[in-house]
Amino acid sequence: MEKVYRYIEDNQDMYIEWLRELCRQPSVSAQNRGMKEMVELVKKYLHLIGTDITIIETSGYPIVYGEINQNKNKTLSFYNHYDVQPEDPIELWDMDPYGAIIKDGKLYARGSSDNKGNLIARICAVHAYQQVYGKLPLNVKFIFEGEEEIGSPHLTDFANNHPEKLETDGIIWEGGSRGADGRLHVTLGVKGICYVELVAKGANTDLHSSEAAIIVNPAWRLIWALNTLKDENENILIEGFYDKVVQPNEIDRKFLKEMDFDEQYKLKTTGLDQFLLGVTGDDLKERLLYHPTCTICGMESGYIDEGSKTVLPSKAIAKIDFRLVPDQEPDDIVALLRKHLDKHGFSDIEIVRHSSKNPYKTDPDNPLAKTVIENVDSVYHKPPVIYRNSPGSSPIYDFCSNKDIPVVQIGVAHEDSRFHAPNENIYIKDYIDGIKMTATVIHEFAKEK
Amino acid sequence: MEKVYRYIEDNQDMYIEWLRELCRQPSVSAQNRGMKEMVELVKKYLHLIGTDITIIETSGYPIVYGEINQNKNKTLSFYNHYDVQPEDPIELWDMDPYGAIIKDGKLYARGSSDNKGNLIARICAVHAYQQVYGKLPLNVKFIFEGEEEIGSPHLTDFANNHPEKLETDGIIWEGGSRGADGRLHVTLGVKGICYVELVAKGANTDLHSSEAAIIVNPAWRLIWALNTLKDENENILIEGFYDKVVQPNEIDRKFLKEMDFDEQYKLKTTGLDQFLLGVTGDDLKERLLYHPTCTICGMESGYIDEGSKTVLPSKAIAKIDFRLVPDQEPDDIVALLRKHLDKHGFSDIEIVRHSSKNPYKTDPDNPLAKTVIENVDSVYHKPPVIYRNSPGSSPIYDFCSNKDIPVVQIGVAHEDSRFHAPNENIYIKDYIDGIKMTATVIHEFAKEK
Repeated sequence: MEKVYRYIEDNQDMYIEWLRELCRQPSVSAQNRGMKEMVELVKKYLHLIGTDITIIETSGYPIVYGEINQNKNKTLSFYNHYDVQPEDPIELWDMDPYGAIIKDGKLYARGSSDNKGNLIARICAVHAYQQVYGKLPLNVKFIFEGEEEIGSPHLTDFANNHPEKLETDGIIWEGGSRGADGRLHVTLGVKGICYVELVAKGANTDLHSSEAAIIVNPAWRLIWALNTLKDENENILIEGFYDKVVQPNEIDRKFLKEMDFDEQYKLKTTGLDQFLLGVTGDDLKERLLYHPTCTICGMESGYIDEGSKTVLPSKAIAKIDFRLVPDQEPDDIVALLRKHLDKHGFSDIEIVRHSSKNPYKTDPDNPLAKTVIENVDSVYHKPPVIYRNSPGSSPIYDFCSNKDIPVVQIGVAHEDSRFHAPNENIYIKDYIDGIKMTATVIHEFAKEK
Repeated sequence: MEKVYRYIEDNQDMYIEWLRELCRQPSVSAQNRGMKEMVELVKKYLHLIGTDITIIETSGYPIVYGEINQNKNKTLSFYNHYDVQPEDPIELWDMDPYGAIIKDGKLYARGSSDNKGNLIARICAVHAYQQVYGKLPLNVKFIFEGEEEIGSPHLTDFANNHPEKLETDGIIWEGGSRGADGRLHVTLGVKGICYVELVAKGANTDLHSSEAAIIVNPAWRLIWALNTLKDENENILIEGFYDKVVQPNEIDRKFLKEMDFDEQYKLKTTGLDQFLLGVTGDDLKERLLYHPTCTICGMESGYIDEGSKTVLPSKAIAKIDFRLVPDQEPDDIVALLRKHLDKHGFSDIEIVRHSSKNPYKTDPDNPLAKTVIENVDSVYHKPPVIYRNSPGSSPIYDFCSNKDIPVVQIGVAHEDSRFHAPNENIYIKDYIDGIKMTATVIHEFAKEK
């Protein structure tokens, strides 16, 4: 691979320009800004490496699907997305979110870390490999969607309608980070998510609060209902909620122990004195990666502006996300929640479902995972940190249609890359290393039996 | 009084025009619209009846104070306010809120029922009395403030700085209604209010909800804290909360029994199947008038827009009003609440105080109350309904500086007058009767020993 590494280094200015071109093009799916132009750009670079492109139209934004078929019996797929989060709040950026300026070794842009840096790094890796060796040692598939930042509403349909496009020996998923210690994070799983809205209703209109003496207050109904869901020790009280939870095994715990987590840094940046319930060390990491959660993400009722208004609200809502671990399933959780609310006298409270995703886990002994893990050192000169699971969620399960496809996440971001936030950035060095790492995976995975 | 009644009837077109002139002038204190012009109009009508006017400037809007000193040893005061609520939502009005149009016997205008109809009715009554008898049988004082709709922030200062202007034998307070059965409501008390905001804080910024596994969620802290304040049977659980509550006595219960409350109408207009806890009849009325409350008026945390956002909120707030009954005091309640939160492990939750007002009660045997009650029949040809207390609050206690001044509320509104709402209105007949009733009180109260 030394030749490929050298090619990448010799041509790094070109690869950086490719990334900057993508970053200069806004592609905000939530606001339908620049999406068509972005699709054209993605197509341009896929063409450049000889990809056979299919555009899968949806009622939203298309999935750009590509294949480089080398008639090999091994296929490696790449999932990425070409849309980005809105750049708001714009006033907190220190530079143009679409300027793609480079400063102190970092490239700043909306989408640089999530997910354009990874998307183009995969293309660059194929390009460099082709330039050195002519052909790839395996078949490659690209699945680039444009709706990840709005919940991937058409990804499951795509997977169901195009099973042949999913056939693969493994997927490198959208991305990941490098730790402050320089070690690459290799992530082998994601939590699932079940996002619901609880709605309590009272009178048909807001009333004067003096009427609260005799008229039901939906805000109180909601408070009492929520209080039955979780206690102050963070135990989720929904009957059966933990029944399907698979406890971390010995390997999981081993990876957890090796995982670095800078507690002081996290506390400092969040302005807190301690973590939830005062946990630290392995307990803290276990909670972060392996515990399901029940989180109030939003809550609203009645008057919420400055000062006071004496109003009896007609409605109260709470938005809740449950992060799930294997083998919990969103459908089960909603059913258990309904049963729980009914049992506790809250049949009046409506459950509105939003997005849901199953948890997903890849075995570290599987060929793709092994390839990635064993070859990190050759690029990063340090062993990886294995994340047996990730605290967040991704539509991997739905996408893979439960086909047991190995999915590994690695990427070009770092700990302070500010996904979804102002001043989003990546290190140029991480970007170049990310191209090398992708090329290495292509090369080494082809050899795996 | 027949002569006075006849004078009022003969001149009712003029008195209606006086009211329409006031209603055509917007005077929105919350938005500083038309306030100066309104003060001039109020002064014009006070001048017309020979009032000695003093303008008490405040950092907000002035209190227009007036006296007609007849060198009598009895004084009757009138409290009213010349400001109105904003007319929003303007699109729900069927007419110009400042058009003061008359249709089907009703006058429609923002401020018609709250409080311009009453303010000018007091002036008309004095005018008619003077036209018939030349002089008034007692001294009259007018206290017309311009900040009632924004919480009367300068009324207590006025009371403290001008004790001589408060000296009186009784006050007719701003207003009241006539029931669907045509009987005038005479109100002899108000609940107090203590409005607070509870604030729970977490990290210094909103975080990705995947971090909720290890970072405190202030929304949950708030839920658990609120849950300790009141149970599902509406029992307020703050230790000592009920200690100072004076239970309704026999007279209170007698008035309660006589009080008419149209349960079916209320249920129909609110779209509900039943009242709180299923109460009806005397229990319902007792709860409405004599029970203190703890009401969530507003609640906010995290993401509250459409759809879902996976955010761990950094802050959660709840706005709560406690309606208080004699002899509860707002200061006590806040102290008890603080103690309660601390005791239950919620020292982290901050209490921010907003407005507070003590409850106030006038003895039905007192001369002004007796005068009003005994003379309702002569104008309305039906006995009054006595409200020993009112479900709402008014700054009477602070204004009277606890001087034990008798305060009686009667007015020109009716059950569907739509205070603060679109299509606010009064019946022309109620307005004319309100002028007569005020004149009657002036006449009869002067005779009381």
